[in-house]
Amino acid sequence: MRKLVAEAFGTFCLVFAGTGAVVVNDLHGGVVTHVGVALTFGMVVLAMIYTVGDVSGCHLNPAVTLGFFAARRFEWPRVVPYILAQCAGAVLASLVLRAMFPAHPSLGATLPAGTALQSWVMEFVLTLMLMVVILSVSTGSKEKGILAGVAVGAVIALEAMFAGPVSGASMNPARSLAPAVVAGRLDHLWLYLTAPVAGALAGVVVCGAIHGPGECCRPDGAKE
Amino acid sequence: MRKLVAEAFGTFCLVFAGTGAVVVNDLHGGVVTHVGVALTFGMVVLAMIYTVGDVSGCHLNPAVTLGFFAARRFEWPRVVPYILAQCAGAVLASLVLRAMFPAHPSLGATLPAGTALQSWVMEFVLTLMLMVVILSVSTGSKEKGILAGVAVGAVIALEAMFAGPVSGASMNPARSLAPAVVAGRLDHLWLYLTAPVAGALAGVVVCGAIHGPGECCRPDGAKE
Amino acid sequence: MRKLVAEAFGTFCLVFAGTGAVVVNDLHGGVVTHVGVALTFGMVVLAMIYTVGDVSGCHLNPAVTLGFFAARRFEWPRVVPYILAQCAGAVLASLVLRAMFPAHPSLGATLPAGTALQSWVMEFVLTLMLMVVILSVSTGSKEKGILAGVAVGAVIALEAMFAGPVSGASMNPARSLAPAVVAGRLDHLWLYLTAPVAGALAGVVVCGAIHGPGECCRPDGAKE
Amino acid sequence: MRKLVAEAFGTFCLVFAGTGAVVVNDLHGGVVTHVGVALTFGMVVLAMIYTVGDVSGCHLNPAVTLGFFAARRFEWPRVVPYILAQCAGAVLASLVLRAMFPAHPSLGATLPAGTALQSWVMEFVLTLMLMVVILSVSTGSKEKGILAGVAVGAVIALEAMFAGPVSGASMNPARSLAPAVVAGRLDHLWLYLTAPVAGALAGVVVCGAIHGPGECCRPDGAKE
Repeated sequence: MRKLVAEAFGTFCLVFAGTGAVVVNDLHGGVVTHVGVALTFGMVVLAMIYTVGDVSGCHLNPAVTLGFFAARRFEWPRVVPYILAQCAGAVLASLVLRAMFPAHPSLGATLPAGTALQSWVMEFVLTLMLMVVILSVSTGSKEKGILAGVAVGAVIALEAMFAGPVSGASMNPARSLAPAVVAGRLDHLWLYLTAPVAGALAGVVVCGAIHGPGECCRPDGAKE
Repeated sequence: MRKLVAEAFGTFCLVFAGTGAVVVNDLHGGVVTHVGVALTFGMVVLAMIYTVGDVSGCHLNPAVTLGFFAARRFEWPRVVPYILAQCAGAVLASLVLRAMFPAHPSLGATLPAGTALQSWVMEFVLTLMLMVVILSVSTGSKEKGILAGVAVGAVIALEAMFAGPVSGASMNPARSLAPAVVAGRLDHLWLYLTAPVAGALAGVVVCGAIHGPGECCRPDGAKE
Repeated sequence: MRKLVAEAFGTFCLVFAGTGAVVVNDLHGGVVTHVGVALTFGMVVLAMIYTVGDVSGCHLNPAVTLGFFAARRFEWPRVVPYILAQCAGAVLASLVLRAMFPAHPSLGATLPAGTALQSWVMEFVLTLMLMVVILSVSTGSKEKGILAGVAVGAVIALEAMFAGPVSGASMNPARSLAPAVVAGRLDHLWLYLTAPVAGALAGVVVCGAIHGPGECCRPDGAKE
Repeated sequence: MRKLVAEAFGTFCLVFAGTGAVVVNDLHGGVVTHVGVALTFGMVVLAMIYTVGDVSGCHLNPAVTLGFFAARRFEWPRVVPYILAQCAGAVLASLVLRAMFPAHPSLGATLPAGTALQSWVMEFVLTLMLMVVILSVSTGSKEKGILAGVAVGAVIALEAMFAGPVSGASMNPARSLAPAVVAGRLDHLWLYLTAPVAGALAGVVVCGAIHGPGECCRPDGAKE
């Protein structure tokens, strides 16, 4: 149960700060800047990893939870509760943001700037890279573990930085679902539900090719 | 006594650099930028944690001191001296800034951009998040302790980044009190004295729900 | 073989994110900003060091591989396979970027802003500095090793930050080769193939003068 | 002797990258931005601490060397050679920058934006803060030592960020001397030679008040 509270709280912070940065930037003349939005996403993930990482593993992302399951490092009975907790935290964040900023139309929902295919490929590659990093820094040597939050936070920040203008750089179905549902902007939501999951699963395969399957896929759920 | 010097020095640096960034940005055509102001706040807290953290715990913030007290990790007789030392350091910083930049009207005082309620809620949520992170990184595993300054500095920077345009992202009664008193801008000060304290106390409850009360609330003041 | 997959994947991520940031910045009105591009390059190298560092050493750069060889910390039979894997990963990244962004003419290829000599000297000094840092943080005390990714990522970011407007701040033949070949912009490519290699070799000499040859040049390939 | 090479190399990198960022920003339409310049200064110091820190202590700054001497953690016979090595590295960097960018008039020399007194006070306070941080992170617990480069780099970056528009945020006589001498801009140089030294000496006193004299001032030169 504490794990679910941790996931809900962590995802609340991620969506409140991250999509909050998008909303505040829109409402205050762009003063946060795109760079500031990207750094906000990266830093909140960094902080959450050191805050709830030892309780729940700090997935904060249904695609990451499914990736850990595919890598046999997370048990099936806990997958659905984790995803529900993540979505609950994310939706709560979007509800608070709507109450605070009723004038904002989209609440930071992700939308493709170009074609849907372009954004689908982008989200697929982004989440693949993210999943390989997450699996690698949480199975490798202890030293890497100390810096795991810095490494994963850096990936979130850099992917938001360079890919945000293209696809919104979601990499996370819960992060896209919440503002879309609360703001009623459901167009293209399918893209942000499917591409990150496909990318995370592909990341498990790539991680196995780099570290060897024994390193990336541990039947006993070593990370937990 | 050394603890009080450490808190006063740390809070001096926080207010001198942080509100100094606001003042310099105003006086030099916005060259520091909002992103630069937010990073200044985050980096000065990061540096101070590694500088005075092992002496005083590096609270630098009356709301954080009260939060540690509420979590039974800080003794009552030391609460008021800590808060006085923090306010003394903050006021000294504002006095030096006024002497250096007499032309600046507000010295970086925090003010709501929208309604007072919006800013109260924002400061409440920001300080809640901050307090959960601080309590978590200072009670958890040793590895997290090494990165505690990075995690807390990241939270300060990201909250200043996305919420600064809304409420000023104070999270800290001492940081708001000093420029308000020195510049004589006391309007809305009540907001920045009450919301961070309420948020910090709520953060203690949330931390207990995530880590279990035994982890977050240690009667023997483990952090000290 | 896993080492080669690691180098190819790492260099793919470096070029996909780094030159992707240049491409997206050009196509979306400069919203990423030069600062954002530089931070993207630094953060992707930081993340890759913690992701593939313990598999392949995370060179991601033919000049770095040749530098490790010159320092007697990497064996000759593995040099050419490493360089081929790096170039393969880089070219794959440029091909994906071309498929996603067919309208962009250069795909982030590096070009001198001023004279070729100015850029040659700049790339030489940049790679010298980079190689000294890499050799130092991977041979020194264990503590430095934990922060190696942060230190090397910081060097990449700062060199891209201040020198990017002059020479593109390549420091890496593979990073320059891939967009040049895929976009057909081969002018000045010779500069980015020769200067980084010369700088890396000079860095081995400087590192020996600082740390002593026994520390920088280990016949048994200590880093691997 | 290796220590002197380390100091010269480190100070070369500091001045080449830091003042190089100022020069490139001026010559390329402000694309680096003030934020980028400040981050460049911070990141190069961070990287150098992990690169040459275990050889020479990575002072890179005559004021810091004098501060360590005043704290009885550095022996007098080595003070002058250290300062000469720092100045030699800094001047070499300015000479290379002049050869590469002959059109730039000041090569990044520091000048007061307002009154000389304002800048003197600013440099005094900045260097005081810097010296307290340096002394604290290099005498305290081992954990802090691992993050020492991050903490000191953060201080350099934040001080350059908020105080750069006022005084140039030198904090370092060698950093100010080199471009002033090479570009022939000696006005106000006295300010940048005296204020940082006075601030560093005051920092030794403040550090003793925080950590106790036994912690900050070690007769046996513990840091070396």
